[in-house]
Amino acid sequence: MTDDPGARPEVKLRPRHQRRVRAGHPWVYSNEIVMDETERSLAPGSLVTVVADDGRRLGVATFNPHTLVSLRILARDPGRNIDREFLADRLKRALKLRESFYEEPFYRLVHGEADGLPGLVVDRYGEVLVCQTATAGMERLLDDILAALDALLDPRVVVLKNESRIRALEGLDSYVRTVKGALDGPVEVRENGVRSPVDVIGGQKTGWFYDQRDNRAFMARLSWGRRVLDLYCYAGGFAVQAVVAGAREAIGVDRSQPALALGEQAAALNGVAERCRWVRSEAFGQMAEFGQAGERFDVVIADPPAFVKSKKDLQIGARAYRKMVRLAAKLVAPDGFLLVSTCSHNVDAALFAQQVRRGLHDAGRAGRVVRAAGAGPDHPVEPYLPESAYLKIQVLHLE
Amino acid sequence: MTDDPGARPEVKLRPRHQRRVRAGHPWVYSNEIVMDETERSLAPGSLVTVVADDGRRLGVATFNPHTLVSLRILARDPGRNIDREFLADRLKRALKLRESFYEEPFYRLVHGEADGLPGLVVDRYGEVLVCQTATAGMERLLDDILAALDALLDPRVVVLKNESRIRALEGLDSYVRTVKGALDGPVEVRENGVRSPVDVIGGQKTGWFYDQRDNRAFMARLSWGRRVLDLYCYAGGFAVQAVVAGAREAIGVDRSQPALALGEQAAALNGVAERCRWVRSEAFGQMAEFGQAGERFDVVIADPPAFVKSKKDLQIGARAYRKMVRLAAKLVAPDGFLLVSTCSHNVDAALFAQQVRRGLHDAGRAGRVVRAAGAGPDHPVEPYLPESAYLKIQVLHLE
Repeated sequence: MTDDPGARPEVKLRPRHQRRVRAGHPWVYSNEIVMDETERSLAPGSLVTVVADDGRRLGVATFNPHTLVSLRILARDPGRNIDREFLADRLKRALKLRESFYEEPFYRLVHGEADGLPGLVVDRYGEVLVCQTATAGMERLLDDILAALDALLDPRVVVLKNESRIRALEGLDSYVRTVKGALDGPVEVRENGVRSPVDVIGGQKTGWFYDQRDNRAFMARLSWGRRVLDLYCYAGGFAVQAVVAGAREAIGVDRSQPALALGEQAAALNGVAERCRWVRSEAFGQMAEFGQAGERFDVVIADPPAFVKSKKDLQIGARAYRKMVRLAAKLVAPDGFLLVSTCSHNVDAALFAQQVRRGLHDAGRAGRVVRAAGAGPDHPVEPYLPESAYLKIQVLHLE
Repeated sequence: MTDDPGARPEVKLRPRHQRRVRAGHPWVYSNEIVMDETERSLAPGSLVTVVADDGRRLGVATFNPHTLVSLRILARDPGRNIDREFLADRLKRALKLRESFYEEPFYRLVHGEADGLPGLVVDRYGEVLVCQTATAGMERLLDDILAALDALLDPRVVVLKNESRIRALEGLDSYVRTVKGALDGPVEVRENGVRSPVDVIGGQKTGWFYDQRDNRAFMARLSWGRRVLDLYCYAGGFAVQAVVAGAREAIGVDRSQPALALGEQAAALNGVAERCRWVRSEAFGQMAEFGQAGERFDVVIADPPAFVKSKKDLQIGARAYRKMVRLAAKLVAPDGFLLVSTCSHNVDAALFAQQVRRGLHDAGRAGRVVRAAGAGPDHPVEPYLPESAYLKIQVLHLE
């Protein structure tokens, strides 16, 4: 897409709606904009100059007239040309930041707004990059992004994993496409010194959840000599890292056979297959079954997919977390540890903590929070979007 | 103190005030209690049986008729004898928990309510234990606590560091007393592989702030080859650990000469004295001076004492955090890192984040939060007292 700051369409804010943007917030909602026929007819994802009611130009943004968040600001300088060089600068900064955290090239390279690239996620698996775009604006910039990534990292393979449901809200279709090179099987991730095969094409999201890296390390350190249950284990990240760190045994539970197969391969790759077991089962039912059988574990991890997908699910979803905590807490041996998590944007840390308390009470278990955390530093947070810190975990020590 | 569950005074809750306690909350406020002459005349710190309006016995607690938090529940079983064995069990559990986190005996061993010992803090420096009691109830149990600690760990030295201002609210006097052995100088702490001398008698709190251990490790990893400014450096924990991890230079700023002397000794102990500088100065003034002189640092740490000591200071204190962030952010070189913290109970994470955003805006600096965290796992949190998670830090990457 060619940008020309002088010829860019302008989108004007309604009176008294410029303050938040001026303070530094990167979003403008549709009801804050003067939305006439001209604005409505702009192609979703167009680059526009944002103009305050008083005529002051506030920056350049991508614009979608059909979405709740209509403007996503890319730069505060309205004269800035949003070209390949601009995007390359953002990517370079994102890369340099990750290289200050990690020695090996396995991380979330780009995390949307916090990296100045709203709507874009890039996960790096060594020479393989997996990109996700979530907005019409980023979709229109994608060719330049891909060219800039190519110049920066010369990846062997680039996959566009564009199947998120939120794309439909932006008028975008769903697809998975390998745009550079080819994959003939899983790629390998190295995290906390442990190797795991990742299916970037068929797996969830980009194939691996880097956000739990530090929490996996924390639980692994606690697991020496202990028996571990990894619920919603997906590709077995928590389980395998715990066993490599000296857990006596780990049982991974997931309802996806392909996910369990990856866990099994990871265990074999790290030489710990004989201390891992993989159970294909739905977590709630399996927890109840273990409970009835009197099975107890020293460390239990329950890291489920989002129970709350939208605000209207909040009550039902919150109760689901409470129930999950109740069932999981019952499986924890005395003096054991329980990790519970939510990745629901709509469930904030306080609401989650409340559900955890209630679930513990329901289970008749007392304890203490020894860790309350979120995603690792390769998932930075834009200061004006604290709600984008979607992952909340608690680790409890139970009596 | 001798306890006899059968002969213990009873304290009754007012109607409809038992629900929170029954759900698991460990505190009862004075206005939730039937407070007649009998109750008022009980010695502060007495052990009492907590009784609901309907006569149900809810547990055993320490009682202080003169404080806002009047009852602090020790055990849910009212028949439980609060004797040395009871306290020893709590201490053993606290010790076992720390031993699952740390290989060396340097940590907060007891952290109040979360360890089932309300009003008690014990920091362990190898063979030296430093205890703080903050409630009349714990003060009365202290002889048994000390005996139990002795049986458990046989420490060489035990110091009571009872000079916190909140003791006055409980009717307790202020004193520092060595109750076992003797100290003839600083003790040594080992944290993140780095040795530091600690003055448990003359220093702040128990002498060292273990709560920042994980945050020091995080900043040290970021500091390789970089220039570091450690504001409010106290005994130089952040500075020395950063330099040991490869920082090019670190400057520690504190207004206490004895604190700086400890930092200097720590630098020497770890063989990095030539890369450390120590400046005796007040942080705000020093930041302004560095700013005017055009000094820039790749990593800036601003970990101040609490600016908000009580709710009435909230507005002024919040503004002080904003100002601190503004001054500190100006000193951060492009692509540098800034750690800011608050240890004010009354400043919650959301309010602190807001002040950080405002301070960054005032400084004209954009960036992203790469870490939002609290104290380490040796400072567990009672699930019903989330506000007791007093430490909040943010690490920002600034453009």
